[in-house]
Amino acid sequence: MRTLSASMLSGTSCDRHFSPRAFVSAILAFEAALARAEASLGLIPEDAAAAIRAAARDLVPDLDSITAKGTDAGTPVVELLAQLAARIETGVRGASAYLHLGATSQDALDTATVLCVKPCVSLALTALEEARRQALRLASEHAASPMLARTLMQAAGITTFGLKAATWGASLTRCERRVREAAGEGLSVQLGGAVGSGLMFGDRWEALRAAVACELDLATGPSGTWQAMRDGWANLLVQIGLATGVAAKIAGDLALMAQTEVGEIHEPASAKASARRGTSSALPHKQNPVLCMRILGCGHAVQGLTASLLPTLAVEHERGLGTWQAELAIAPDLISYAVGALEALAELLKGLRFDGLRAQRNIDATCGLVFADQAMFQLARVLPRDVVSQAVGTACNRVRAEGGHLRDAIRHALEPHRAQGSQPELTVDAALAAAFDPAASIEAASRGTERILQAEVRDQGSGIGE
Amino acid sequence: MRTLSASMLSGTSCDRHFSPRAFVSAILAFEAALARAEASLGLIPEDAAAAIRAAARDLVPDLDSITAKGTDAGTPVVELLAQLAARIETGVRGASAYLHLGATSQDALDTATVLCVKPCVSLALTALEEARRQALRLASEHAASPMLARTLMQAAGITTFGLKAATWGASLTRCERRVREAAGEGLSVQLGGAVGSGLMFGDRWEALRAAVACELDLATGPSGTWQAMRDGWANLLVQIGLATGVAAKIAGDLALMAQTEVGEIHEPASAKASARRGTSSALPHKQNPVLCMRILGCGHAVQGLTASLLPTLAVEHERGLGTWQAELAIAPDLISYAVGALEALAELLKGLRFDGLRAQRNIDATCGLVFADQAMFQLARVLPRDVVSQAVGTACNRVRAEGGHLRDAIRHALEPHRAQGSQPELTVDAALAAAFDPAASIEAASRGTERILQAEVRDQGSGIGE
Amino acid sequence: MRTLSASMLSGTSCDRHFSPRAFVSAILAFEAALARAEASLGLIPEDAAAAIRAAARDLVPDLDSITAKGTDAGTPVVELLAQLAARIETGVRGASAYLHLGATSQDALDTATVLCVKPCVSLALTALEEARRQALRLASEHAASPMLARTLMQAAGITTFGLKAATWGASLTRCERRVREAAGEGLSVQLGGAVGSGLMFGDRWEALRAAVACELDLATGPSGTWQAMRDGWANLLVQIGLATGVAAKIAGDLALMAQTEVGEIHEPASAKASARRGTSSALPHKQNPVLCMRILGCGHAVQGLTASLLPTLAVEHERGLGTWQAELAIAPDLISYAVGALEALAELLKGLRFDGLRAQRNIDATCGLVFADQAMFQLARVLPRDVVSQAVGTACNRVRAEGGHLRDAIRHALEPHRAQGSQPELTVDAALAAAFDPAASIEAASRGTERILQAEVRDQGSGIGE
Amino acid sequence: MRTLSASMLSGTSCDRHFSPRAFVSAILAFEAALARAEASLGLIPEDAAAAIRAAARDLVPDLDSITAKGTDAGTPVVELLAQLAARIETGVRGASAYLHLGATSQDALDTATVLCVKPCVSLALTALEEARRQALRLASEHAASPMLARTLMQAAGITTFGLKAATWGASLTRCERRVREAAGEGLSVQLGGAVGSGLMFGDRWEALRAAVACELDLATGPSGTWQAMRDGWANLLVQIGLATGVAAKIAGDLALMAQTEVGEIHEPASAKASARRGTSSALPHKQNPVLCMRILGCGHAVQGLTASLLPTLAVEHERGLGTWQAELAIAPDLISYAVGALEALAELLKGLRFDGLRAQRNIDATCGLVFADQAMFQLARVLPRDVVSQAVGTACNRVRAEGGHLRDAIRHALEPHRAQGSQPELTVDAALAAAFDPAASIEAASRGTERILQAEVRDQGSGIGE
Repeated sequence: MRTLSASMLSGTSCDRHFSPRAFVSAILAFEAALARAEASLGLIPEDAAAAIRAAARDLVPDLDSITAKGTDAGTPVVELLAQLAARIETGVRGASAYLHLGATSQDALDTATVLCVKPCVSLALTALEEARRQALRLASEHAASPMLARTLMQAAGITTFGLKAATWGASLTRCERRVREAAGEGLSVQLGGAVGSGLMFGDRWEALRAAVACELDLATGPSGTWQAMRDGWANLLVQIGLATGVAAKIAGDLALMAQTEVGEIHEPASAKASARRGTSSALPHKQNPVLCMRILGCGHAVQGLTASLLPTLAVEHERGLGTWQAELAIAPDLISYAVGALEALAELLKGLRFDGLRAQRNIDATCGLVFADQAMFQLARVLPRDVVSQAVGTACNRVRAEGGHLRDAIRHALEPHRAQGSQPELTVDAALAAAFDPAASIEAASRGTERILQAEVRDQGSGIGE
Repeated sequence: MRTLSASMLSGTSCDRHFSPRAFVSAILAFEAALARAEASLGLIPEDAAAAIRAAARDLVPDLDSITAKGTDAGTPVVELLAQLAARIETGVRGASAYLHLGATSQDALDTATVLCVKPCVSLALTALEEARRQALRLASEHAASPMLARTLMQAAGITTFGLKAATWGASLTRCERRVREAAGEGLSVQLGGAVGSGLMFGDRWEALRAAVACELDLATGPSGTWQAMRDGWANLLVQIGLATGVAAKIAGDLALMAQTEVGEIHEPASAKASARRGTSSALPHKQNPVLCMRILGCGHAVQGLTASLLPTLAVEHERGLGTWQAELAIAPDLISYAVGALEALAELLKGLRFDGLRAQRNIDATCGLVFADQAMFQLARVLPRDVVSQAVGTACNRVRAEGGHLRDAIRHALEPHRAQGSQPELTVDAALAAAFDPAASIEAASRGTERILQAEVRDQGSGIGE
Repeated sequence: MRTLSASMLSGTSCDRHFSPRAFVSAILAFEAALARAEASLGLIPEDAAAAIRAAARDLVPDLDSITAKGTDAGTPVVELLAQLAARIETGVRGASAYLHLGATSQDALDTATVLCVKPCVSLALTALEEARRQALRLASEHAASPMLARTLMQAAGITTFGLKAATWGASLTRCERRVREAAGEGLSVQLGGAVGSGLMFGDRWEALRAAVACELDLATGPSGTWQAMRDGWANLLVQIGLATGVAAKIAGDLALMAQTEVGEIHEPASAKASARRGTSSALPHKQNPVLCMRILGCGHAVQGLTASLLPTLAVEHERGLGTWQAELAIAPDLISYAVGALEALAELLKGLRFDGLRAQRNIDATCGLVFADQAMFQLARVLPRDVVSQAVGTACNRVRAEGGHLRDAIRHALEPHRAQGSQPELTVDAALAAAFDPAASIEAASRGTERILQAEVRDQGSGIGE
Repeated sequence: MRTLSASMLSGTSCDRHFSPRAFVSAILAFEAALARAEASLGLIPEDAAAAIRAAARDLVPDLDSITAKGTDAGTPVVELLAQLAARIETGVRGASAYLHLGATSQDALDTATVLCVKPCVSLALTALEEARRQALRLASEHAASPMLARTLMQAAGITTFGLKAATWGASLTRCERRVREAAGEGLSVQLGGAVGSGLMFGDRWEALRAAVACELDLATGPSGTWQAMRDGWANLLVQIGLATGVAAKIAGDLALMAQTEVGEIHEPASAKASARRGTSSALPHKQNPVLCMRILGCGHAVQGLTASLLPTLAVEHERGLGTWQAELAIAPDLISYAVGALEALAELLKGLRFDGLRAQRNIDATCGLVFADQAMFQLARVLPRDVVSQAVGTACNRVRAEGGHLRDAIRHALEPHRAQGSQPELTVDAALAAAFDPAASIEAASRGTERILQAEVRDQGSGIGE
């Protein structure tokens, strides 16, 4: 089990895949698959392979011994193989001579890590897919639900919650595609032997690698090995990191929207009846945005772990000293946090409640200031630009200082010009009416939302979706 | 100009693309392209567009003023537009009203950054391509040139320099493919207007974005904008980071091979007659592996800069506060170091000299120890495994303690068994002869090299290469 | 000049210290100081030293040549020394033989970097000191100015702006102390000769190092050299990074307070009359929190650069390959961003306007919910805990659903209990009055503020302040 | 238990301090200490405090429930307190009302984390101290043991293993001092209540904090709280990171020295009889430098985790959303890896064997090239500089191309000058004799070693050592 503080952020979905027991089982699965494949290609006797597979299936490994001796040896494989060999010998005497034949520790460790990571990548993809679906559902439902657009953390204009959600969804689609592509490359078997040349496998190397990959349902990987050129594997981890970064971006927006003073979204209540999501040990009124917290927290953890992935690429020669070993240790943590973030995101997007009334109140509370650019634009059609510019500027300052609505303040600021003006008052009023009508903004955002949704449907049709 | 210490590592290839002047020119190019595209779609008058383009072409921007006022405003665009507008007005009065119409600062900044980055990505790809080509050439030339394989920084067996270089080349191919794909997505125009909804562009938004992209020879990008969902752009930077990481891995191997005590490669002399590559201010005999140093140094710098890319993904709402701004500042440094590393790598691989004699001497100096696993394997065919295991272990220890050759030490260790042995001496000798013959190792490595080279040719044929 | 995007964030305060010209001047200063010190200790003739110093003063270095040849040589020192030697020879023939005597490139590069960094550390300390002073001034002025305390980005209770500012100030004090201590250790001369053993200096090594340090007004540093054990120097950079991190924390709080929907602080207008701080190219009403943006942006950049400092500690042997070279390239960027952040923070804290009315309105807008824990506590004195807990819970939900004030909602929720209650209504009312009176919260925060201010005065008295 | 791959690197020394059970116990210890301290100050009844302490001592927490509900609530504290309250009520009815009084979740979580971290910091300091002692022992023993100095990974001259070890030791001393100082500040109790103002503690806040700190043997910390200004705590983690970085530097040097082709050091055999340190699953002859591997691997992991510490400083307002929560999750991993690295370093330095013969052979193998600068210097005393410079350059090239010894090659290169020379041959020979005598280099390094050792003794005397 990981630390409690880590579990609080990431949940425990990946724990069973990354436990020492699961990892040892994955090594055993590798050895069994290797034996079977070697036998199928005539490299070792069939009955030896059968004995190895039986022992690999039945062995109850002594984890304490593996941990203790493994730390000393720098690899758990030597001691595990000793235990496995002993078990094999209780079955078919002499068969252990064919165990691990031609392979090396790192073949077992890399492949076992890939085997443990694979179901977690599936969890990540499932969560990404669900988060994307929910984001696009929100986009569709709220395509025309107005809310403040905010730039540099200031109210800037009108957008819709739909457009916001649509851009989230489109980004999640891209991330899912990249993770999926990277997984196709990164979840590959490792099999190179002592120095990565497949020496003991002769001209069966490629065939053997393919057979083991097939046995374990992994990709065959690049020609030769990836033990020392780990870009494909690192790219998978990096893409999972990027997806987590996008999740953190979305959670950041939602956390800002969930602020007491903004109140535009509420996190879903917990699905578990007994659970008290977001309660506080000190404050009875609090409803903490716990899902946002978990996503953001996992995001921070993933960022640091991702930062290790470039340095650990620099494997020394055929098999490095401390580089790939660190990377194998980092990967499970990185993925656990990532899956935690993405699952929390899916749950959050699925259950969140958008408060359209509050969003409208937040628009209204800006006293029309967020329409200033539209006012500028519409008035410039009927009045000289410098006149408009000055009037709108004066009016903005007045609203900020004294309150009132920007429309009235502009009208007031234009008084002197109206007297001398060539433009009939009606035209100015029409311009102001057009400027302060949110319909154009809502329509633009709504149109943008539709385009994104259409593009998503198109892409899904071409195989990215289900 | 960057700091001298930075230039020493990265060289200056990217400097002209990232100078303040180049960046301002790129903003002007964006404004000119926007005006032309808007005119073509009937959004602004043709003559206004012409005036804007003329002014954008002719303006000599006051950079000091832009820097000073820009720092205060948080963006250089406002002051630059003021200078541009003034210039426009000296041409066609009133035309400046149509400048930047519907766009926002970030549209200009993001697009200008992409415009500056694009030629540098080309430099990176050219260097990657050349480095790959050279690596594959080395692979081909040295497919059967034996050298020590080293694992955990210890001599482990025999490989060939060709296999080493082939795995480098294959990784560079993959990196090039990923950078290229990411560039197709990441080098996109940005055009969303004040809040990212294309409000002022009405139903011409998509067409306008496409027109501006076409004008600037950039990709149109995802539907809508990527201003707040920067995964595509970040992925481009990350892929460039990964490629740099691979370059650092290769340079690391070469630096280890270039050590005085190893001496298996030598860096090329400088192409410049006047230059004294790798000389020392204190030591006349030194020939420092300067290209390795530069690649490794750039690698370190890129690693840190890449670590900022996940946090800066978390743009707040429609346009963040300090996130994307930091990312725009980081990108040029990241790319400059990356291009520096990749260009140095290409030069290094092109000119390096592999010293096959020295490589052979390094093999010989292990006194046969690197054949121990082969000895184990071959002898186990003719003698009981435990006998073999003990004899080889004893012999290894003896060689390490007293010197001599492992073959002889094994023969000696097997003496007692020979007397009682069921195996004729001849068989043991044959086994030892097979074990200590490097041919099998060389053949395996050579075969692996060929497979990689064939796969590379295949992939190139399918469009990855030139 | 750095990129425009970088300057927009960091400003240009450090630029002149980190220009190639300044760096070359610093190398020349090192060579001059070395010559003088060597002469004073009888290691070289006085007149040679004089000639070296004169030439170092008068040389107009050819920077282009230094950059070009330096990139090839991996160090600018060789070419610069060649130019300097030529200049010396035009003065005193033969004197150039005594130039750089016993030193090595890295001695010059490390010391020159320290010389360039030193005035920037002063800028950082000055800014830290000013920011701290302003934070404590705000703490003092607003010790009793109530505002919402927010936890997990939700309104949580009442604090004062003073307490918030006081904790900022105390943290800045600690950062300043740590930077100052680290500078005392990190701003040291480097002088070890070719392999770091001071070989050419004989038994005068320690004395010479001290003399050069004195000449350059730097610390003498640890016994021997720090060229390969760079923890002291790295710690200085890390401490500057931590201070920037604290600046980003403060700017983050202020950015949240400056949100349109919160409105509790306003950034100062620019000191420059001509400047238009925080204006937008698209939106006339915007007042962007540019200083916050710059601090946060610099913070992001510094975080990544700091991440490189641990890997670059791993200098290989006596002088590494790409490690310290990268660190020398990173340091100026890191410090420039840090100084930018700290100067912007000082300006921000000095000029910000706290809007107490708005802060009070934000408290009122919670409808009493932020007093829920006090209500729980006070009522539990007069009613059974489970009764209180249920009533307050019900009331909180009601206020969130229907509005109204929590006090009334609690009173209503307690109705049934009142009839049967053992407690006189008066007592309940008194409990509610106590609970909903902000005075206790304000007093607690005010008391906490005073304690911090007193501690600060105490520490300043003991030498931490001016 | 952590993943097997992580345990392989870090060992398991910290596991028991960071297990979920240990963490929950630490929270219980906090609650017990709080109750006792509150009772002692009259804030709660003595018998309630006694009941709380008894329950905290006796409770067998339901960890599964805490994990499951905690993930939902975003904190394990709510559910743990519910379990504890139930237990209290089975003891003294009504006493649970006084549990956690005035405190908040983060008070418990921060303090509990500090309690778990504290013994691990002691482990780190013990290991640092031992590593330092061993480095200084090696320095003392090998003060005059010559070996190659290497710069930019090339043989550069002669140093001694003692000087190398002395600079390691001095750096470890500095790191130990910084960790110790940072621990004095960072290992502080957290106690601020709901919003960090100590509201419920009235004017007893400071006294209460001191009492709880005393009870738990932690520092009282800065006035008020550090919940939102976490620089002191972050600095502790950063200093541990820096110490790990220094460990990685040392391990890097040793790994380079342990290379087969260099062979200057050997790792100690394992203390455990059963263990087979550094054995390989494929290669019987391998003796992998496992301790170096573990230190380097932990170093990589720590580097990434440290990179998260600046971003997580940016706690939002009084208690952040995902920032400090991530930091609490990261700290145990960071420290576990750091302790793993430092313990491995201590073991490595204690048991390593320096092979002086091999070191001498490596010097000899350079054919005198590493004396080239001394040759230049000594000859320049008796011959014109340009003559010397050319002759030494020619001779270096010849040695590299054709072998032979540099002394002879120089003599040969000087032939033409000798005939015409003003200098008697004797003088040249004397110069060459002086140049190629390693005594001067050894003496310089030895002198430098002594100075560092003396400085260490001095500092230890002033309280830094035991």
